[in-house]
Amino acid sequence: MEVGGYGVFSAPGEPPRVGARRGDEVLDLAAAAPAALRELLAAPSLNPLMAAGPDAWAAAAAIEDAPAHALAAVELHLPFAVADYVDFYSSLHHATNAGRMFRPGGDPLPPNWLHLPVGYHGRAGTVVPSGTAIVRPCGQLGPGEYGPTRRLDVELELGFVIGRPSRHGERVAVDRALEHVFGVVLLNDWSARDIQAWETVPLGPFLAKSFATSISHWVVPLDALRRSAREPQDPAPLPYLREDPWAFDLALELELNGTVLARTNARELYWSAAQQIAHLTVNGASLRTGDLLGSGTISGPGRRERGSLLELSWNGAEPIGLDDGSTRTFLEDGDEVVLRGAGLGEVRGRVSAR
Amino acid sequence: MEVGGYGVFSAPGEPPRVGARRGDEVLDLAAAAPAALRELLAAPSLNPLMAAGPDAWAAAAAIEDAPAHALAAVELHLPFAVADYVDFYSSLHHATNAGRMFRPGGDPLPPNWLHLPVGYHGRAGTVVPSGTAIVRPCGQLGPGEYGPTRRLDVELELGFVIGRPSRHGERVAVDRALEHVFGVVLLNDWSARDIQAWETVPLGPFLAKSFATSISHWVVPLDALRRSAREPQDPAPLPYLREDPWAFDLALELELNGTVLARTNARELYWSAAQQIAHLTVNGASLRTGDLLGSGTISGPGRRERGSLLELSWNGAEPIGLDDGSTRTFLEDGDEVVLRGAGLGEVRGRVSAR
Repeated sequence: MEVGGYGVFSAPGEPPRVGARRGDEVLDLAAAAPAALRELLAAPSLNPLMAAGPDAWAAAAAIEDAPAHALAAVELHLPFAVADYVDFYSSLHHATNAGRMFRPGGDPLPPNWLHLPVGYHGRAGTVVPSGTAIVRPCGQLGPGEYGPTRRLDVELELGFVIGRPSRHGERVAVDRALEHVFGVVLLNDWSARDIQAWETVPLGPFLAKSFATSISHWVVPLDALRRSAREPQDPAPLPYLREDPWAFDLALELELNGTVLARTNARELYWSAAQQIAHLTVNGASLRTGDLLGSGTISGPGRRERGSLLELSWNGAEPIGLDDGSTRTFLEDGDEVVLRGAGLGEVRGRVSAR
Repeated sequence: MEVGGYGVFSAPGEPPRVGARRGDEVLDLAAAAPAALRELLAAPSLNPLMAAGPDAWAAAAAIEDAPAHALAAVELHLPFAVADYVDFYSSLHHATNAGRMFRPGGDPLPPNWLHLPVGYHGRAGTVVPSGTAIVRPCGQLGPGEYGPTRRLDVELELGFVIGRPSRHGERVAVDRALEHVFGVVLLNDWSARDIQAWETVPLGPFLAKSFATSISHWVVPLDALRRSAREPQDPAPLPYLREDPWAFDLALELELNGTVLARTNARELYWSAAQQIAHLTVNGASLRTGDLLGSGTISGPGRRERGSLLELSWNGAEPIGLDDGSTRTFLEDGDEVVLRGAGLGEVRGRVSAR
């Protein structure tokens, strides 16, 4: 499936502006845009186009004869300025695996999990584009213990990007929620598991996640993506979350140093992006252009369908073999992780020591 | 103590710009500024001035003969665009009270609390200025239960506002941390306690806090505020958090419908703003201009020194009397809350039904 979508590129010596990906080329949309669109497309981020709404999006999609640059000849940038970043926890298998590891013997799912899309806010200021080096973070690993994380991990996620904002006080209805979404990116929610374990009670993850979150360069409109029906949710959700059950049907993979460790699919998300948006706004919170909504780690039921090393190595107990003969539990310095998604391209990051 | 600080005002028919508060007047700084400063001060937010750093701040403070507007004759706006909003949990008495209520019989403090300033990210997009009506939020109050919150609460906090940014990957040293702070606001972290109780495990507060966070109109530079020494921390913190112990010495009060319910002081913060910043950046996370760092609810040891209704009413078990003869556990529609701080002015909000 060919990679599409919108991003921000710069040709040598020229300022960054909006481009459209077509295979191995980037189309310079501003150069061929009608006057009314040109200013939006000459911006160094997608935000003006995203804020302008669906009519402008359709007009940008209809631009013809835009000059093309070879992908290899341009520099790619963070595609949009992130407003608020929210990370959900919407894969049933991921949440179940985490519960089995950290609450053995108890119910693997928290009591609220089947009733609402659990989520929390992350750090918008450290969202970085694919290719940015990931410096191993330092922090508290336990009481009185300080140093670089020993349990650096990845999380394979989708990121939904808000285009059209909502008013403060407005509840976005679940069946209108996707009208606010400009498109989708791949997202790697880098995580330091030892820092997380020590800091997370009672207010949730903080420094374990805030050092970097990587996203792919191309924001892909929803209509380019395949959907499929899914089984009804049980228990039936409250009315504000109720819809005909569906999911995006996107093949995803997690690669480490050239070895594909896991293959999964966006169908494994129990809560849809529409439900996440309806939930996020049910208390009157507004959506802003540039809000980024992480899906949560996407894991399937199989052993090689898990979207994090935490799950693949079962919290370090079961080392994973790579094609070069080495094994991993968590990431080592120099390791390179690539997440790929059908139609979405890739998000890439290499771990460096400080 | 006279209220000082910087904010954003508009005179009738004129665009918003930066002003300085002097008693009951607002000084129109841009009108009297040297050319190099004028553009920063004509902006509709403090962000350009804040980003310009301490030399520009000193130059703005040195402006003389600026024309004055009566405070009552101008409109006041959100003083700055919020980048990331982080809320800490740094008052020992508040954390102890919360632990006693929600984990009776156990240690009231989580194991990490004396080792690090616990914090989490909140929603930047719903930070609103003093005077904004607070609409009672709806949400899930328990399994299958939906409606307007029945436990609407306030939290009396300070908010530290980042001016000078730090680089991604840089750790800000604790003894240099305050160089990044432009000033302080009062902050009301409105909270829906029933929504919070149901959603918060395992990833922390989300919709219980994201519907609104109110801040005062005036960002007050640190050098205007009194400091005092405090007792050493025990256990001694890790080196990256270590400093000569100090705290701001600011009288604070919480008023509901004209009755002062609590008087406390910023001295009750166990972790300093410098320690919060050193912690926030120890993993390499960057600071951006406009980052807002809530201190956490500030409570003293006494019954009438508690900075939330949760604590004042002991989770609803001990109703609080108001001067009009009524009682409260949590907020009713129409209630007006005012937080005040010495030199900081006030932050005000009235609850409305949907």
